[in-house]
Amino acid sequence: VTKEEAVGLALSLVGRSEVAMLGTVNADGYPNIKALSKVATEGIKDVWFVTHVRTRRVAQLRNDARACVYFVDPAKFQGLMVVGSAEIHQDAAIKRRMWQPQFEHYFPLGVDSPEYCVLHFKGEKANFAWGLINVDIDV
Amino acid sequence: VTKEEAVGLALSLVGRSEVAMLGTVNADGYPNIKALSKVATEGIKDVWFVTHVRTRRVAQLRNDARACVYFVDPAKFQGLMVVGSAEIHQDAAIKRRMWQPQFEHYFPLGVDSPEYCVLHFKGEKANFAWGLINVDIDV
Repeated sequence: VTKEEAVGLALSLVGRSEVAMLGTVNADGYPNIKALSKVATEGIKDVWFVTHVRTRRVAQLRNDARACVYFVDPAKFQGLMVVGSAEIHQDAAIKRRMWQPQFEHYFPLGVDSPEYCVLHFKGEKANFAWGLINVDIDV
Repeated sequence: VTKEEAVGLALSLVGRSEVAMLGTVNADGYPNIKALSKVATEGIKDVWFVTHVRTRRVAQLRNDARACVYFVDPAKFQGLMVVGSAEIHQDAAIKRRMWQPQFEHYFPLGVDSPEYCVLHFKGEKANFAWGLINVDIDV
């Protein structure tokens, strides 16, 4: 596949993925992985998740912002890994922008809940794999 | 859920997973994730994969053995993360033990192919998540 085709396949994979894997590094230098529901994306560069301020991965990212996001379709042997950094936002504007009614299940106080925060992943490098094919693509 | 129930649910998740996510740390300290077909497991402590000796993750693990393996069932909101280390084996005995006929698609020279190697992940700590429930379990 050409780079252009790989970008198209990667965007399609991102679009149809409801869940992505977030990779972080813990305080002991070990990689950690957690599946999170994708809330919003812009291309393959920006991915937004929502989470509770007191989770392990929020603590990890505040200690070490280096992260990766992995989208995978095992049935098609396709995987997109984007490597970059992630920041935690607690300002009202971005919290309102990302809010969805069903989040009230996790945050009964609603959009202004102090425990609700937005995790913004910013990609720097990406690699798309399809079976044995492996292509570095620009984010 | 009790710890015993979490162990049972975790073992069931491992058993029905064909694919697991392998987390590694690259030379720049960034987490990386790759989906790999599970070849064999023993409890939730040992997981074996097979791979090509010249892949990125083999190079990463030779540089930094710290790793994690993540099994996920997004439909059931279940995830098992096992943190530990991984080693690369190229000795004939373990290569023969893990060999499956369909690997010939990737290694035309067969079980003695010098490019075929076994990745043995050894878990040290595990965490099972089911929705908002989160339980540390022994490996």
